[in-house]
Amino acid sequence: MDELRLKPYKKDFDFSYTQGVFPSLELVNNLPGIVRKVITSSKGQDNEGVLKLSEICLKKNIPFCFDDKTVERLSPKDNCYSICVFEKYSKPLDCMANHVVLVNPSDMGNLGTIIRTLTAFGLINLAIISPAADIFDPKTIRASMGALFHINFCYYDSFDSYMESCGNREFFPFMLEGRPLEDITHTNSFPYSLIMGNESRGLDNSFSKIGTPVRIMHLNSVDSLNLPVATAIGAYYFTKGGFENA
Amino acid sequence: MDELRLKPYKKDFDFSYTQGVFPSLELVNNLPGIVRKVITSSKGQDNEGVLKLSEICLKKNIPFCFDDKTVERLSPKDNCYSICVFEKYSKPLDCMANHVVLVNPSDMGNLGTIIRTLTAFGLINLAIISPAADIFDPKTIRASMGALFHINFCYYDSFDSYMESCGNREFFPFMLEGRPLEDITHTNSFPYSLIMGNESRGLDNSFSKIGTPVRIMHLNSVDSLNLPVATAIGAYYFTKGGFENA
Repeated sequence: MDELRLKPYKKDFDFSYTQGVFPSLELVNNLPGIVRKVITSSKGQDNEGVLKLSEICLKKNIPFCFDDKTVERLSPKDNCYSICVFEKYSKPLDCMANHVVLVNPSDMGNLGTIIRTLTAFGLINLAIISPAADIFDPKTIRASMGALFHINFCYYDSFDSYMESCGNREFFPFMLEGRPLEDITHTNSFPYSLIMGNESRGLDNSFSKIGTPVRIMHLNSVDSLNLPVATAIGAYYFTKGGFENA
Repeated sequence: MDELRLKPYKKDFDFSYTQGVFPSLELVNNLPGIVRKVITSSKGQDNEGVLKLSEICLKKNIPFCFDDKTVERLSPKDNCYSICVFEKYSKPLDCMANHVVLVNPSDMGNLGTIIRTLTAFGLINLAIISPAADIFDPKTIRASMGALFHINFCYYDSFDSYMESCGNREFFPFMLEGRPLEDITHTNSFPYSLIMGNESRGLDNSFSKIGTPVRIMHLNSVDSLNLPVATAIGAYYFTKGGFENA
């Protein structure tokens, strides 16, 4: 792989890019073994983050080079000093841990924002039901602010195939016909899975028979909450213990 | 104003557009008095929402026309059947109500998403401290899914000028140095204001002396939550007791 030939990302590549210093640092710090190369723009040579990046690369024996044209070609419009080329990888889910399941998420920005939020609340096992947005697309990685490199994730062809492989657990599908979130408690006997539907369609009715359907109550002046917002509220509620102290 | 001359939106216009049937319906239903014209693409003539829109326009005496070229010129890339031209307006804050204050929000998508979430939770009084994203930009309106037309809002030159005009209230600035959200109670003697900072800078230190600083606790594997997510969690927490009738 020669950087002169590096092309803008496509889904069928066996590698992808981080764009920007911050997510690149997250990558080389968390998963140095998959990094092929860090490419930096000479514009960033005095940037503190770039200096850190070059130090880590030296220490971990990761190729580091300056190449303005490649950075420019592979960057989005805004200022970007570093590109990090890495091999796609898998990090299987922990069956004993709590999960979040996204059913057919379609937007890469949303997927990345959700990964950032879930990582913040320690929900680092993410199941994604296909068809779905590409977790390795540079847009997803950017929106996640590099939090992608902290989580375990797995794509499944169907919710059934996820259920077959995920062990005993409590399921909480978030949908319009559900019990108010504030009434929900979970027993801690089993890990839980929070299940969120697609941006425009939500979850279909078949999920009303799975576990305990949950509803985030809101006024009907708005049709629905947006997906990263609904997921964040669910994640916050389940990880903060339902506000016993409030 | 002739639709042949309608140009893509600029901030200094005294009018703006909704793009899409859903936000256009929100507008003609909630604020018919400010609507100058509804322009529809002939592609949408069998669309249920477009039919509803035309009925309401007829009933409320709002000009309604088909004009494919204008819709195409003023639409974003994705499918859009209707454009609604409306006069910019003001809807002053209710000083007795709870407020959300956004200090220098810079992203129109974020601003719209926040408006959608706040409307869902009944927090319909929004103060915005300049410089800030334009609430009337079609991008903001789209991200709000038309929830903009449900809220009161006002721009202020500084937080001080907001404080001078907003009456007695409890202030809760969301920042890294604050009490955990779960420890916060509010007295209901005064209305509250939830204060959120800019996307990249947050709130500056001067806010630590204002009211009760609050922190949304999260793991430090992530630098911060994104702004719509943090605002949503704050709004959810402060309003969760208010859904008795839902």
